[in-house]
Formats: sequence, structure tokens, C-alpha cells
Amino acid sequence: MAMNHAIFETKAWQKLVSTQNNGNSRDLDSVMVKDFDGWVLDMSRSGIEANDLKLMLEAASQCQIQAQIKAAFQGEKINFTENRAVLHMSLRDDPSDPLTPKENSEFALEQLQLALEFATKTRQSKITDVVNIGIGGSDLGPKLLSESLRPYLSGPKVHYVSNVDPAHISVTLSCLKPENTLFIIVSKTFTTQETMTNAMIAKKWGGNLATFCAVTTNKEKALEFGIDQKSIFTFGDWVGGRYSLWSTVGLSSMIAFGADHFKQVLAGAHQADKDFLTKPLEENLPILLALWDLWNVNIKQYDSCAILPYEHNLESFARWFQQLAMESNGKSVDRNGQRVDYQTCPTYWGEVGTNGQHAFYQLLHQGTTITPCEFIGFAQTHYKDQSSHQILLANMLAQAKAFYEGHEDKKNKFKNFEGGRTNLTLLSDKPTPFRIGQLLATFEHRVMAQGFLWNVPSFDQWGVELGKVLAKGILESWNDSKSLDKTTQSLLSTIRKFS
Amino acid sequence: MAMNHAIFETKAWQKLVSTQNNGNSRDLDSVMVKDFDGWVLDMSRSGIEANDLKLMLEAASQCQIQAQIKAAFQGEKINFTENRAVLHMSLRDDPSDPLTPKENSEFALEQLQLALEFATKTRQSKITDVVNIGIGGSDLGPKLLSESLRPYLSGPKVHYVSNVDPAHISVTLSCLKPENTLFIIVSKTFTTQETMTNAMIAKKWGGNLATFCAVTTNKEKALEFGIDQKSIFTFGDWVGGRYSLWSTVGLSSMIAFGADHFKQVLAGAHQADKDFLTKPLEENLPILLALWDLWNVNIKQYDSCAILPYEHNLESFARWFQQLAMESNGKSVDRNGQRVDYQTCPTYWGEVGTNGQHAFYQLLHQGTTITPCEFIGFAQTHYKDQSSHQILLANMLAQAKAFYEGHEDKKNKFKNFEGGRTNLTLLSDKPTPFRIGQLLATFEHRVMAQGFLWNVPSFDQWGVELGKVLAKGILESWNDSKSLDKTTQSLLSTIRKFS
Repeated sequence: MAMNHAIFETKAWQKLVSTQNNGNSRDLDSVMVKDFDGWVLDMSRSGIEANDLKLMLEAASQCQIQAQIKAAFQGEKINFTENRAVLHMSLRDDPSDPLTPKENSEFALEQLQLALEFATKTRQSKITDVVNIGIGGSDLGPKLLSESLRPYLSGPKVHYVSNVDPAHISVTLSCLKPENTLFIIVSKTFTTQETMTNAMIAKKWGGNLATFCAVTTNKEKALEFGIDQKSIFTFGDWVGGRYSLWSTVGLSSMIAFGADHFKQVLAGAHQADKDFLTKPLEENLPILLALWDLWNVNIKQYDSCAILPYEHNLESFARWFQQLAMESNGKSVDRNGQRVDYQTCPTYWGEVGTNGQHAFYQLLHQGTTITPCEFIGFAQTHYKDQSSHQILLANMLAQAKAFYEGHEDKKNKFKNFEGGRTNLTLLSDKPTPFRIGQLLATFEHRVMAQGFLWNVPSFDQWGVELGKVLAKGILESWNDSKSLDKTTQSLLSTIRKFS
Repeated sequence: MAMNHAIFETKAWQKLVSTQNNGNSRDLDSVMVKDFDGWVLDMSRSGIEANDLKLMLEAASQCQIQAQIKAAFQGEKINFTENRAVLHMSLRDDPSDPLTPKENSEFALEQLQLALEFATKTRQSKITDVVNIGIGGSDLGPKLLSESLRPYLSGPKVHYVSNVDPAHISVTLSCLKPENTLFIIVSKTFTTQETMTNAMIAKKWGGNLATFCAVTTNKEKALEFGIDQKSIFTFGDWVGGRYSLWSTVGLSSMIAFGADHFKQVLAGAHQADKDFLTKPLEENLPILLALWDLWNVNIKQYDSCAILPYEHNLESFARWFQQLAMESNGKSVDRNGQRVDYQTCPTYWGEVGTNGQHAFYQLLHQGTTITPCEFIGFAQTHYKDQSSHQILLANMLAQAKAFYEGHEDKKNKFKNFEGGRTNLTLLSDKPTPFRIGQLLATFEHRVMAQGFLWNVPSFDQWGVELGKVLAKGILESWNDSKSLDKTTQSLLSTIRKFS
């Protein structure tokens, strides 16, 4: 593979570093509002001024970001540390006019059809409750989808069990009846410790009465577990766990809101794909979002970023994005195998408004650290209480304004707001299946673009492996821990004492 | 009020700054395990060595932290910006041998009795569902309590509605019947916009069939709303919202798990109070935790801290602590009214293990920023699947070890773990009501101790006021926004276009 470069090596970025605005000019005339296929991005309080953005776009171009995006869509093995292509875009592609390799989109569509048929049958069956057993990408994505489209729910009730803590599955099962329950075991390898542990508990609980199906790339293991051949769904190895919600991994959400709505979700994501691949940089939403991230992290040295959707059904959005971004780009070795000398992924965290306002916004307003904030809102609500929704949006607008403008109080310093707390706002019309698909895929691409610009391998996750290996070792030494380090020995002896 | 000083002005802290270890010595022999009334704290991977801790304890002492704690318990108006005492400790005090002013503990006990009686009656009534309508401290605390003690739930099902987004209350009410539903409207002032908006929706939905009660310090407003005199519960103005779960604000949880368990929660908190007030600094858990915070923020310059409970029923713990800490100490003006020149509260965020492992731990292991981590675990589980619980704990021990020790891979840099990611572990026997009370009160005191050491006014929250005022202005100008700033005007016009 040819040498890859981070954006920081480009001439335009170096010029940016030497000429950037000081972030305090508050030039509200350079309001940068842009329209992107049904979404509006307001960057006028981002702290980024017109000239900064121009230089960043130049730098991204010099970093050959568009060629890198093209390579991804063409199926090049850009996940080179695992020797795989990165083609979750194929999951929502149109094989008759594909953006990604035809065979991938065809395979994805075939698998999708099987899952959708199964979903439709399940919706017409005696099944009243569906339990998705999976963790990480096999949980966060499908869960977010089902929640964010609550107004479209019409099938069996879906539940998500992820944690190996017996509390999670016990509490979930306590209200269910085996004969009306379908379990979906979701694990790429069908060996994920948490998932298989919970699957075994479910099997025991369900006896011969409960129904089981599986989503996996390891058919043999699923058969061994006792799942019927026809109830095993799969996806390509070019789909990473955290990008898998569009695949058969989304089965629980297909059951929850039906095949047609799921197709709408895919259509929205496909629109985002097309825009990411074809739009010029200055009209490319994921790229603008990624540049805002780099501005915050590498120019302003901010370590974290708050994601604040003013849409209650997106209550898991920040958590989903946390995985997407932090597992992808929480890396410190670049694609050339070199330790980077700049910061990469920040901590993303957040909470829906207005809940966050009554929790941690105090720090966002008056703390000693500046945390860039992102507001996400929809003009319309599915629910009938319009005036509540208006209050919700008014609060969002007010917070965005207050963070940036501040409010001077010379008499009472405790009531002084320094302002300059940069933020951006993303607006759309209504949280429909299409819009949710578009939003999620846009954020996926933002993370891909970040990875290209930071020059890190975004598609592996070696960081989760070490803990797995060590956990196995500790389990094996549970009763004879002499081989372990002192601290672990001491903790184990405390656990024994407390048992 | 006399001049207050931050810990940084003490001689011991200045010595610490000049002599601190470099955090890389990994001296596992200086394992610092301490036992605190049923809890064990392991700080051997905190990066803090014996001599650092000694100096920090000296500095805390020189900062007169114990006198400040005493002043709080004695009812001095340490919330001086609002001219109030800070006496949530009275809510769990014993009036016959009180740690706080007798009249406060007596008043608290009286109110508690009324709420407990009401809870007991409700548990014996036809009520099947209880909806707590409140936001911030009127939501996060009681919700955490009810969730964390799931194994003890035996009464009506409790639901929590906080967000003004109509989605929240609509989704909640969709499964309920007015005649079996009790609403608890929780608002200190009974004017909180979100809460009163939702309360009005509930009233309309419930007609004459639903039951209403209120928890407030503004009885008149509650009467006006139509709530019966006997169904209005109150608490003192010396109880801040984020410290109020122990008061009548906890009514929903009293109904959920009964009076006896609630008293056990209070007993655990009282134990924590006694320990905080009387234990020497080196045996004082909240103070050790606060010093670890200051070490991370002010010595190591880390901006955030991850809270990682390996106990599924503590799934809202990080969010609850986020409010507690960030609303209390997310301040940049000290108690003398001066802008501070050091960092105060970091961003606290987190997720239960093992879920977090499959989400953001990648960044914690291999990202460019170090995020100190806190593991919280219990040796025993209430649930029958003991082997799942053992896997859970093994994972916790493995992650703590992996973060700190790392793992060198010279051949494959992508699999190299630098280690040195500091963390601490807090262990106890079983998540009983007593232990949960103890844990929550310990973390409250940690935040109080932080405030004393950072010298910030921890008990107000002016930072949430500005947004409220601006939201009102925006609502009033919704259809004629000429008086507003350009960005808000532009966002409003986008909202109109999308409506």
C-alpha cells in the first residue's frame, strides 16, 4: 500500500495553522447555512470562519479525500489490517445502478430479502415479543433504529439484551412467555462471549417452546447451537459490526416496524451514500462535519464533543455514535504503522435535550473547559402535542445562542457567562425512516472521512482484543490466582471475601 | 464570609507539583487497598504513589477541608450565593442522635413518614402504574434508585417522564389506563417548564380518573393545579435538586420497592455521612476519590473521566453522577468571586460493563488521550446465573489490568497497547438497598469535597438560567423574529420551511 498522509502535512493545513481566526471574532455575518438534501447545517457558531473553512477544504482536497472515498466505494481493501473491503454501503445499494461492486450489492439484497420475508412472517405469527441478543454493533444499531422510529412500530415488541450481567436477561425474560417469544442471536463469529452466554440462558429458559433464529457469518456454529438452517441469516465479511445495522443484523427492527419502513431507512442511507461519493467537498455534509471535528480536536485542542439531539426517540443516538466514532478512530498508530504526534478521536458523549439542560449543561455554560456541542432537531413531530414540541425547539435554539453569545454580568460574577462555546445545529423536517437512514449514514461517513484525514485505520478494533484474552486467563485462574499480578490477586481475594 | 482558598495554594500541593512521580513507575508493590465499611478501594493503578497521596492528604488538611465538612453538617449557609444551608444529610439523619441540626432532621423525618405512608397505601391500592413527572434531580435520582434496586421491586410499575418532547409522555401513556395510574408531579417551584407542560398533558389524559400527587416546596401552586392538600409532599429549601432523591422526591421509588427498603437506603447513606464527617482523611473514601479527581484534572490535565459500573442495574449511574458532579462543580468562578486559573470539573461519562467494552473501550485502550477509568463491582449478584456474573467480574478485572499494564507488540504496531491508562476499582459485597444508599451518598460527598478543594460554589446552578430566559424570548418571538439575532432568525426560518 502506498504511503498515506494525514491532512496536517498538506500546505493548506499549515497555512490554516498560521492564519486561523482566534475564535473570538463572533462574525455573525458570515453565517454559514447550507442545505443538504433535506438537512440544513448551521455552522455560524462553530468558531470556524469563511477563510478557515476554505483552507480546510483545500487541505482535505490535497489529502486526496475524494480518491479515498472512491476507493472505499469501489471495494478496495481499505481495512488493510484485516485485509477486507469496507462495503456497508452495499447494504443499501441499488444493484441495477450500483455505487459499490455489483456482486456485493446483489449479495446484500438477496440476504435482505430473506430477512425481510422472515420479518413479515414473524409479524403475522403468534410471536408477541422478540429478544435480540447481541452486543456492540449487534445491539446499539438495531436498538437505535427501533427506538428512533417508535411512531412506526406495529409488530411484536422488541427487547435488546447485551450485557453478560445476569440482571439484563433475567429482567427482560421475567415478563415474557417462551411460546410467544422469538430470540435473535446476533454474533458475527457466533463465539462472542456475552452473546453466547446469554443465548445459552435463553435456550434453557425457552425449552422447546421458544423460537430461535441467528444472524451470523458462522453458519456452522449456529447449526451446532440448534438453529434451523432456514432461520440463519448472514452478511458479508466486508461489513464491520458497528456498520451492520443495515444488514440482516437489523432483523429485530424489520420485525418491529415492517419491511417497507426498513426499505425507506435504506433509501435514506443510500441518498447519503450518493451525496458523500459525488458532492463537491464544500457541499459534502459528512466532510464538513469531519472538518469541524478536526478543527475542534487539532486546532482548538478540545478533547470531547457533546451530541445533543432535541428528539426524544434519538435517546440512544449519542451512545451509538460513541461506538461508531470511538471504536473506529480511537487509535494512535497511523496507516503507515507510525505512532501519531497529533490527537485523533475525541470523546463523544451526550444526552437528549431538554434532559441534558437539567443535568450537565451547567458545565457546558460555565465550566473551565470548552466542549463543542452539536444540536440535532426536527421541525415536525409525530405526536399531537405541538406546543410541547415548540417549547422543545425553542429550548434548543436558546441553548445554542446562550453557549455562543454568553451574557455579561459585571455585578454578579457567578451569573457571568463568558460565551464563545462553539456549537452547530443540524435541522431537518421530520424523523421519518428515510431521514433517520440519511442521518445515520451521514454520521458513518463523517467517521470514515475523519479516519482518512487523521490517517488512522478506522475499520479494525484491536483495542478490544487484549481485554478478552486477559478475561479468559482470569476466569481460568479464578480459584488459584498465584500466576496473576499482585493487584488482580488482591481484587480477587476481596471478591472471595465479599462472596 | 472569610476568604476561601483552593488546595493549590497550600504548601503541600506546591511540593506535590514539584516532586510528583511521573506516573510511569508502575510500582505495583505500593498497592493501596483500603477498606471502608463494606467497600474496598484499590488505587494501585491510579498512577498516584504513596508519597503523592501523602502530600495530597496534607494539602487537603491545610485547605481545612474537615472544618468545611463540619460547617456543612452544622447547617452553615455554605450555599452562600443562594443564602441557604446544604443539608441533604438531614434527610437520612437520626434525630435522636443527629449529625445535622435537630430541627432539620426532625422536619425531614416528618415529611418522610407522610410520604412512606402514602407509598404504603398506594402499594395496597388499585394503582398498577406510577408516572413520575420531573426533570433533572427530580428524575435522575429516583429513577436510578428504582432501577438499581430492581430485585426489590414489588409494587406498581414506575415510569419516569422528563423530556418536554411530546414523544416521552405519549410513549409512556400509550400502555397505561387512567383509572390505574398515579402521577407524581415533582418540581421544587412547581413552575419548571418541562414538568408543568407534561403535567398538563397528564391531567388532560387522566380526566377525572387518574390520581395525582405532588412533591414541591410551592404548595399553593400545587393546590392551584388541583392536587389535594393531603397529596402534596414537601422538603426543605436546604435540599438541592440534585441531592433530593432521599427526600419525598424519592416517592416513586418508595412505592416501587416499599418503605422498609427505602429506610435501608437511607441507613446506608447515613453511614456514609457519618464516615465522611468523622473519619480521618486517609480513611475517608469521598476525600480519596476527590483527590484522585484533582490528581487527574490538575496534575495530569485530563479533561474527562469514565465511570464504568459492572452492575447492569446501575445503567443510569454515570448519568446521575454526571449531573451531580457537572452541575455542582462545572464552574469557573471561585467562592471569592474570582475567575479561577485552574481547571475544575471534568466531563464524567460512562456506561455499564461489558457493554462499554464493545463500544468505546477501543479509544480507552489505544486512543491518543488518556481517560482515567473507575470500575465499580459487586462480588455477589441477586440473579441465579452465577457463571454469567463470574464472567462479568473477570472482564472487569481484565480491563483494569489491560488499561494499566498494556501489552507490547513490536511486530504489529496496530496491536500494541501502551498501557499507563490509570484506573481505580471500587468493590463491595452485594447491591443491597443499604449499599446503594452508601454508594450514592459517598459520591455526593466526593463532589462536595471537590468543591471545597477547587474552592467553587458547588450548590448553585446559575448556568441553567440563561437558557431558560432565552427560550422564553424565542417562544414569544416565534412568529415575528426580527428582534432576534441573525443565526436564530435563520434557524427559525428553516424550521418554518420544514414545518
